[in-house]
Amino acid sequence: MSEQTYPSVKDLTLEEKASLTSGGDAWHLQGVESKGIPGYMITDGPHGLRKSLASSTGETDLDDSVPATCFPPAAGLSSSWNPELIHQVGEAMAEECIQEKVAVILGPGVNIKRNPLGGRCFEYWSEDPYLAGHEAVGIVAGVQSKGVGTSLKHFAANNQETDRLRVDARISQRALREIYLPAFEHIVKTAQPWTIMCSYNRINGVHSSQNHWLLTDVLRDEWGFEGIVMSDWGADHDRVASLNAGLNLEMPPSYTDDQVVYAARDGRITPAQLDRMAQGMIDLTNKARAAMSIDGYRFDVDAHDEVAHQAAVESMVLLKNDEAILPLDPKQHEKIAVIGEFARTPRYQGGGSSHITPTKMTSFLDTLAERGIEANFAPGFTLDLEPADPALEAAAIETAKTADKVLMFLGLPEAAESEGFDRENIDMPVKQIELLRRVAEVNPNVAVVLSNGSVVSVRPWAQYAKGILESWLLGQAGGPALADVIFGKVSPSGKLAQSIPLDINDDPSMLNWPGEEGHVDYGEGVFVGYRYYDTYNKAVDYPFGYGLSYATFEISDVKATKTGANSATVTATVTNTSAVDAAETVQVYVAPGKADVARPVHELKGFSKVFLKAGESTSVTIDLDERAFAYWSEKFNDWHVEAGEYGIEVGVSSRDIAATVSVELDGDGKTQPLTEWSTFGEWSADPDGSKVVEALAAAGESGELPKLPDNAMMRMFLNSMPINSLPTLMGEAGKDITKFLLDGYAELKK
Amino acid sequence: MSEQTYPSVKDLTLEEKASLTSGGDAWHLQGVESKGIPGYMITDGPHGLRKSLASSTGETDLDDSVPATCFPPAAGLSSSWNPELIHQVGEAMAEECIQEKVAVILGPGVNIKRNPLGGRCFEYWSEDPYLAGHEAVGIVAGVQSKGVGTSLKHFAANNQETDRLRVDARISQRALREIYLPAFEHIVKTAQPWTIMCSYNRINGVHSSQNHWLLTDVLRDEWGFEGIVMSDWGADHDRVASLNAGLNLEMPPSYTDDQVVYAARDGRITPAQLDRMAQGMIDLTNKARAAMSIDGYRFDVDAHDEVAHQAAVESMVLLKNDEAILPLDPKQHEKIAVIGEFARTPRYQGGGSSHITPTKMTSFLDTLAERGIEANFAPGFTLDLEPADPALEAAAIETAKTADKVLMFLGLPEAAESEGFDRENIDMPVKQIELLRRVAEVNPNVAVVLSNGSVVSVRPWAQYAKGILESWLLGQAGGPALADVIFGKVSPSGKLAQSIPLDINDDPSMLNWPGEEGHVDYGEGVFVGYRYYDTYNKAVDYPFGYGLSYATFEISDVKATKTGANSATVTATVTNTSAVDAAETVQVYVAPGKADVARPVHELKGFSKVFLKAGESTSVTIDLDERAFAYWSEKFNDWHVEAGEYGIEVGVSSRDIAATVSVELDGDGKTQPLTEWSTFGEWSADPDGSKVVEALAAAGESGELPKLPDNAMMRMFLNSMPINSLPTLMGEAGKDITKFLLDGYAELKK
Repeated sequence: MSEQTYPSVKDLTLEEKASLTSGGDAWHLQGVESKGIPGYMITDGPHGLRKSLASSTGETDLDDSVPATCFPPAAGLSSSWNPELIHQVGEAMAEECIQEKVAVILGPGVNIKRNPLGGRCFEYWSEDPYLAGHEAVGIVAGVQSKGVGTSLKHFAANNQETDRLRVDARISQRALREIYLPAFEHIVKTAQPWTIMCSYNRINGVHSSQNHWLLTDVLRDEWGFEGIVMSDWGADHDRVASLNAGLNLEMPPSYTDDQVVYAARDGRITPAQLDRMAQGMIDLTNKARAAMSIDGYRFDVDAHDEVAHQAAVESMVLLKNDEAILPLDPKQHEKIAVIGEFARTPRYQGGGSSHITPTKMTSFLDTLAERGIEANFAPGFTLDLEPADPALEAAAIETAKTADKVLMFLGLPEAAESEGFDRENIDMPVKQIELLRRVAEVNPNVAVVLSNGSVVSVRPWAQYAKGILESWLLGQAGGPALADVIFGKVSPSGKLAQSIPLDINDDPSMLNWPGEEGHVDYGEGVFVGYRYYDTYNKAVDYPFGYGLSYATFEISDVKATKTGANSATVTATVTNTSAVDAAETVQVYVAPGKADVARPVHELKGFSKVFLKAGESTSVTIDLDERAFAYWSEKFNDWHVEAGEYGIEVGVSSRDIAATVSVELDGDGKTQPLTEWSTFGEWSADPDGSKVVEALAAAGESGELPKLPDNAMMRMFLNSMPINSLPTLMGEAGKDITKFLLDGYAELKK
Repeated sequence: MSEQTYPSVKDLTLEEKASLTSGGDAWHLQGVESKGIPGYMITDGPHGLRKSLASSTGETDLDDSVPATCFPPAAGLSSSWNPELIHQVGEAMAEECIQEKVAVILGPGVNIKRNPLGGRCFEYWSEDPYLAGHEAVGIVAGVQSKGVGTSLKHFAANNQETDRLRVDARISQRALREIYLPAFEHIVKTAQPWTIMCSYNRINGVHSSQNHWLLTDVLRDEWGFEGIVMSDWGADHDRVASLNAGLNLEMPPSYTDDQVVYAARDGRITPAQLDRMAQGMIDLTNKARAAMSIDGYRFDVDAHDEVAHQAAVESMVLLKNDEAILPLDPKQHEKIAVIGEFARTPRYQGGGSSHITPTKMTSFLDTLAERGIEANFAPGFTLDLEPADPALEAAAIETAKTADKVLMFLGLPEAAESEGFDRENIDMPVKQIELLRRVAEVNPNVAVVLSNGSVVSVRPWAQYAKGILESWLLGQAGGPALADVIFGKVSPSGKLAQSIPLDINDDPSMLNWPGEEGHVDYGEGVFVGYRYYDTYNKAVDYPFGYGLSYATFEISDVKATKTGANSATVTATVTNTSAVDAAETVQVYVAPGKADVARPVHELKGFSKVFLKAGESTSVTIDLDERAFAYWSEKFNDWHVEAGEYGIEVGVSSRDIAATVSVELDGDGKTQPLTEWSTFGEWSADPDGSKVVEALAAAGESGELPKLPDNAMMRMFLNSMPINSLPTLMGEAGKDITKFLLDGYAELKK
């Protein structure tokens, strides 16, 4: 790494500083030529490099980019539950950036999949913030380990495409802190992404780009973020307001740096704030300097393809495997029919800014040919929104008739999901279901392979398939990865990063989806995904964390040990009880039990994926820090751990818990001072308050003060009554009692 | 009526004016003795007078009041769907007020049953604001027709008991306007209640008592309210803030009138505002003067008992009647067993401030004796929360064995529901279900009579009963009313004013119930009750509007005729197709279809209850005004009717629609001016905007201006993009286009 650094803001003129806070063009930073500060390139990600060939112009053409390895989008990668693997993907992407002289790759996107209809669900990670944060951090750390930057996006609460440039996401502080911010928070605190991209939308009335609470109070002051914040493309609507809020960089430039200069001159931006924002841009340039100084670097296309291959293998989730229909016999004693255009023309990524040009593309059919595996293929349907083609169907059914086993490749056509619009339903295309039904009529030995970026409903057609392999979008090496899993070279090991509902209307966010008249209310609060389904005992088709294997596992010896007042360590033994080598993911959920607020029945707070040979055992250890037990208290405006017993569940899905143990925590001791607005019940429950209440009772007995009413109904009213309302119940006497309580408490607190 | 009036505020000193704005004691207004203004009495309602014997002291004893007719609480009365009957109840209550020299009876309470667990659901009307308003208005109009006042309560958004004195109800403007305010609005506009009682809680951060938006902007300025607003008992926490917000009267007095005087002197209350508030109190006293001047009036106890009887008859809802188990043979060819303590000790009202001392009390067993109907009785269980009593159970089962038919009186014990606390579940007591199961084992001919103020779940035990008669709480004349219905003297005609869910967790408000840390988020928005269940296709046990009859009916000839640009009249023929005289309630739901906001699939907008002799037919006509089709637009901050086709459903429950017709409305023509923040899609859809967009296309063709990108993906991005973001897509050229659009539009709008 070069020790040399670029000049600091101290060496720059006001105009030069201002110029640093907007891009040079749509895909470059704006350097300061006279001071030797370069304007490095930044390009789209997040599952591979999208370096536009038209990159120096303002106009955007999403289909026109240099070849890059297409790794599985987050919908797939997130099912791997394997941060190390994800780290390797990050490293590989960084090497491609170095070759292409790209200083920052724009991703990963860690917005929560609030609702399966969200148009970008395919490039987000999970309905769970812990999982999203602990997986996507691998991308950030992996990319940055090679001296290239990332841009964690879209900060924050950008959970839909509908009206995304304007919509006001109205969200409680608790839901923000517990659901929508923690993935960002974890990655900022543990991996310091060089940049963060603010979202287009507003949060509780304020555009993210102008949101001082978000970009400065929370991101920098609370979490200690050291990088820069850039706008999503076109999200900066007011240079001055944005700079004051903590946005360093307007992208793409609106060529309004003069406005910044005027604002600095007349004091609407303080010199210190402009310096901070501009210095951030220089710091970023310094960070990138070493990697950007490497000339002539060529990444290893085949090695990266192999990383994409491994990532794809771990991205698949086996949903159903009746009669062990999978794996198919690798020795080809079986006659196999492959039906479905997706086997020939894979759906391997989603649409929008993440759409990249792969270095290679190997379909499942290609792989079969490469590996010399015989199969009869029939496309069955076209990958468009046109009605069924009777000729294709008839051919497919004929092909199925003569086979021992049928692999049906079904999925969502590319036009069904993309950045820019939300889906209207989670249904599979009718023509595909109908073909499946007819194929199953002539051959019941059907295994379906699904290709889709966002959840599709499975129940309506599951009866026609003995096996269902959810392969999401697998990137460019999906063909060989599918063959590995389907023919049993590797056992599937993916676990769902999101619940598969029975009906989209079961999702509580449907009551406020996608909002209206410029706003969307996050009315379900913290009850997103399994937090809702599991807490309210609602049936799902496949639960969060679920995924089958060709192997079987046993979890035993589950123990939890307190490691501090509010922390614990969980250990468990995992045994592969089968004759098949495979991986299992041990999941740890914290179940808070009784609490002062409505908490989800349990929340994921740790996981560990272990690879075990047939018959092998290993021990896993998962640490639970104070935060693992905390909720966000709007009362304290802080995280809060109540004292008491917490369940710790160890299992292999949110609904398959092998063992529950418990720990008794001390709590963090936070209490709220009593006031005239505290109820009599709260006074009685408080350690100091109860002393004053006792003294009050004594004064009542002795006749010094009036007695409180003592029938059951009146006591009930009293307990829920702020003590400033006592006069309502007792007339003038109530005033004396209120005063007695407040004075007595003040005395104790002296 | 006396023509004489009391002095106006012009004749009063500052101190005298101030004194008018608080009570004289807990149950009296504060008169001005020197000026001859009396301090009339006001007492609790709402289903009968609760005039406390200890009424002149501050202390409250809810069990100690003068006898008054106990009419069915709103849980029952609301099932009548009979505003004329409700009006009679109001008239009767007013006569009792006149006898007792009570100027204002505190009720009715028209808060929406947001969640069945709400502790005061028994004294509220419905989950539907239209029904609540159109029924409860009968109480207001009925009482006031006799020169006595009502107090419409609890204004507003007091939908739970938990933390009710402090809780901040965080509700969208749309949900307030469409769900939580309309019952108040309708009654204010059509019946001008003399007083309104503000609620304890806060709404979006502001206590109702200090809420200028609520008490002045909406209530007076928008709705034209002419009466006074009083505080709920103890809801006034700041005399000055409350008076400024529009609260006329603090109840009970905190003896702080001096604070008002000081505030008036130093300008914190303007003279005009204090005059308005005090004059309201004098106006109220003037209104009451005539009735309060009547001396020695005695109401007709028997006649009022008969009103209570009729009201009780119409309050019952027949949920299930397999094999026509009801009515029982009135000629007593059948041997009848009556099981359940409720038959002897009726549960006839709820707990809290509405708890009154009845003038008479006739149980079902009393009625059987009076009417000479033979039956064997066994109590079966005790009306407390104690475990089952084996001896009582055994006796009950023996009694059942020898009967032809079994009437089982089940219900919630009094301790299960009251003002002051919310319920924790909707389950029937386990011991009662278990007894029912055992009784049904020995005698399958069981009809259950339910006594409960709030919804209980029925499905878990419905299999054990051929008949289920939901009798709610029936007031003091429940016995004879039940006998009328059970023995077929009258057919049941009640319809559910609230959905009976399969599981309380199906209710979407459960995700935010009852709130936490001082607030409750109304996250389900407008999707309350059937608005949720019907819109999201969720199963319920019994739907809103449902109720069986001994008769059968047919609805035919349904027609809708436009009566204006945005109004219509619906007509239908109802025929009693049976040999039994009975009443049917025709319900009209408006189904808006496609709309700019997420609207409930249908909403009740009219109903008509008709009594038809066997074989008789009649025509019903229901008018739908503009409001019947409108939603509250946060964009316009006003009601809005979109142009287009609206379904009009005519049926006998929300899920039993006999016919759907439609009308094509013109819409109210409201449009929002286009701005730089309007999307390109909005520009294209606007009549004027589209002209400018056409001109833009022409300028693109001629080369005057750059062309817009024209691939499908870019068009999609463009359509959702505010035109101030065009530079993001097109660089500098975008600025020219934005300017072209804005200038062109301004020109058109000149």
